[in-house]
Amino acid sequence: MKLTFLGTGAGIPAKKRNVSSLALHLMNKQNSVWLFDCGEATQHQILYTSVKLRKIENIFITHLHGDHIYGLPGLLGSRSFQGAKAPLTVYGPVGIHSFIETSLQISGTYLNYPLKIVEVDNGGLLLDNDKYIVTCSKLDHALPSFGFRVQEKDLPGPLLMEEVNQANIPAGPILQKLKNGEDVILPDGRIVQGKSFIGPVKRGKIVTILGDTRSTESAITLANGANTLVHEATFAKNEEALAHQFFHSTTAQAAEVAQRAGAHQLILNHISSRYQKDNIEQLVIEARDIFPNTFIAEDLSMFEVPAVVRNK
Amino acid sequence: MKLTFLGTGAGIPAKKRNVSSLALHLMNKQNSVWLFDCGEATQHQILYTSVKLRKIENIFITHLHGDHIYGLPGLLGSRSFQGAKAPLTVYGPVGIHSFIETSLQISGTYLNYPLKIVEVDNGGLLLDNDKYIVTCSKLDHALPSFGFRVQEKDLPGPLLMEEVNQANIPAGPILQKLKNGEDVILPDGRIVQGKSFIGPVKRGKIVTILGDTRSTESAITLANGANTLVHEATFAKNEEALAHQFFHSTTAQAAEVAQRAGAHQLILNHISSRYQKDNIEQLVIEARDIFPNTFIAEDLSMFEVPAVVRNK
Repeated sequence: MKLTFLGTGAGIPAKKRNVSSLALHLMNKQNSVWLFDCGEATQHQILYTSVKLRKIENIFITHLHGDHIYGLPGLLGSRSFQGAKAPLTVYGPVGIHSFIETSLQISGTYLNYPLKIVEVDNGGLLLDNDKYIVTCSKLDHALPSFGFRVQEKDLPGPLLMEEVNQANIPAGPILQKLKNGEDVILPDGRIVQGKSFIGPVKRGKIVTILGDTRSTESAITLANGANTLVHEATFAKNEEALAHQFFHSTTAQAAEVAQRAGAHQLILNHISSRYQKDNIEQLVIEARDIFPNTFIAEDLSMFEVPAVVRNK
Repeated sequence: MKLTFLGTGAGIPAKKRNVSSLALHLMNKQNSVWLFDCGEATQHQILYTSVKLRKIENIFITHLHGDHIYGLPGLLGSRSFQGAKAPLTVYGPVGIHSFIETSLQISGTYLNYPLKIVEVDNGGLLLDNDKYIVTCSKLDHALPSFGFRVQEKDLPGPLLMEEVNQANIPAGPILQKLKNGEDVILPDGRIVQGKSFIGPVKRGKIVTILGDTRSTESAITLANGANTLVHEATFAKNEEALAHQFFHSTTAQAAEVAQRAGAHQLILNHISSRYQKDNIEQLVIEARDIFPNTFIAEDLSMFEVPAVVRNK
């Protein structure tokens, strides 16, 4: 999995940081992309990336503030204009349906693909297919704001061909049975156990992406053991009162969440425009004091979600 | 008056041309700006201009297609966020009220300035104050689309001080009476006529800005004697069938409107992304064959509305 940050600013757009949006590349066969938030001009930012609108399968909206949703109607329309036929699902807080429907209907925008809108009220399980599980929980913000935990399902270990050859097991359907972990009677009468020929399970990655929030316990649960946690850090460490007042977090609070959750990597996001070239580095430094593996997101920056050896 | 083109493309944003918006600088004492259309990322484009959001007094929406309105909620919110207190009026087709209200309400956006929304159904007089008259009429598009005619009121001619001095007229309140065109009895008994001491009336400028449209008679009425006509030219001259099919105009049709209306200057706008660097000049050339004083709008290009000696 890989992340492309499309907008990393807070509240209103600036030249260097657009309002919120983040693309998660699943890196699967279909090159699927999931979007998290869709602030105004997200589709404009996408013009400067490898993201194709037709490859966006799901859009998860953390909360309904304008800087997280005003790019939705345009992106949905352009996706159709560009010929997309594949279905798209938007998950978002109650109200997202009315916003999308009103915008599309008034502007006479007809979509040539099936659009499904799933309103989320209290969090829980959003998606569970053969490859991924997505859950969400409420955070602590001025209006309902959610964090999302995307978990790749574990992949079974590979068949260990060296061991198979050493044991003189013939090729053919037997190998598939061993791969499935079954016990098999060989043509020569021996009984072999599948599990002896299978390598360790390949653990799926976990990415946790949070909406705007104060420091909150539910963030720690969502980020438990995550390979990558994307946490807002609207303010610097010394602006804790301001962060509390406006329902946001500081760099230090984000780092504490990452640390307490046992996350592997932290990416700071949703940075106030008060932090510019000359003082932006300080934000990372003060977070690293608490959680060393911290990075700061810039518009159009990309991060590989790192593999980690984890205990179950 | 002066124009700054904020978005000059058609339908969906591209790197070189954003979706529609145009700022009219009134060049008055207040530095007022009127906006025409507000496609997505109009506020982003404004970051690269001298336009201040708080100076925007009126926004005129030609029609409700997404590429002309999806930037409204964000711009209205940012104007408030930046501390604007002055009222703002949005004029637009029926439906604009519901779009704005839904977007602001769902996103919890509270404006710290009075917002008035005027829905336009059949065109007519929109605004008539001491300085300007704005009228609008329906054009010919897939959904109701309007053209706007902004007319500066004529300014009375200046008092001709050279003539005043030659006639030995004493300074003081008498000069104000002459300036008002009144007849005055001088202290020495002479009677003088105000109109003899007043220069020619300073004709107000006329700017006509049209929404998306096929070539249509109402455009000619709106642009009658205009100093500047902004007309869409989505397609080249040889794509008349395509233009008709999609309710748009060609370069040649725009030029014919300018010519028949007796306009002084034509600016082609709303250019399809099929026209790029290598073939864009052709669009101007073919329009100039019909109407020589033609220009093409680029994003962030500025045009002074020229003064013209006109017969009433």
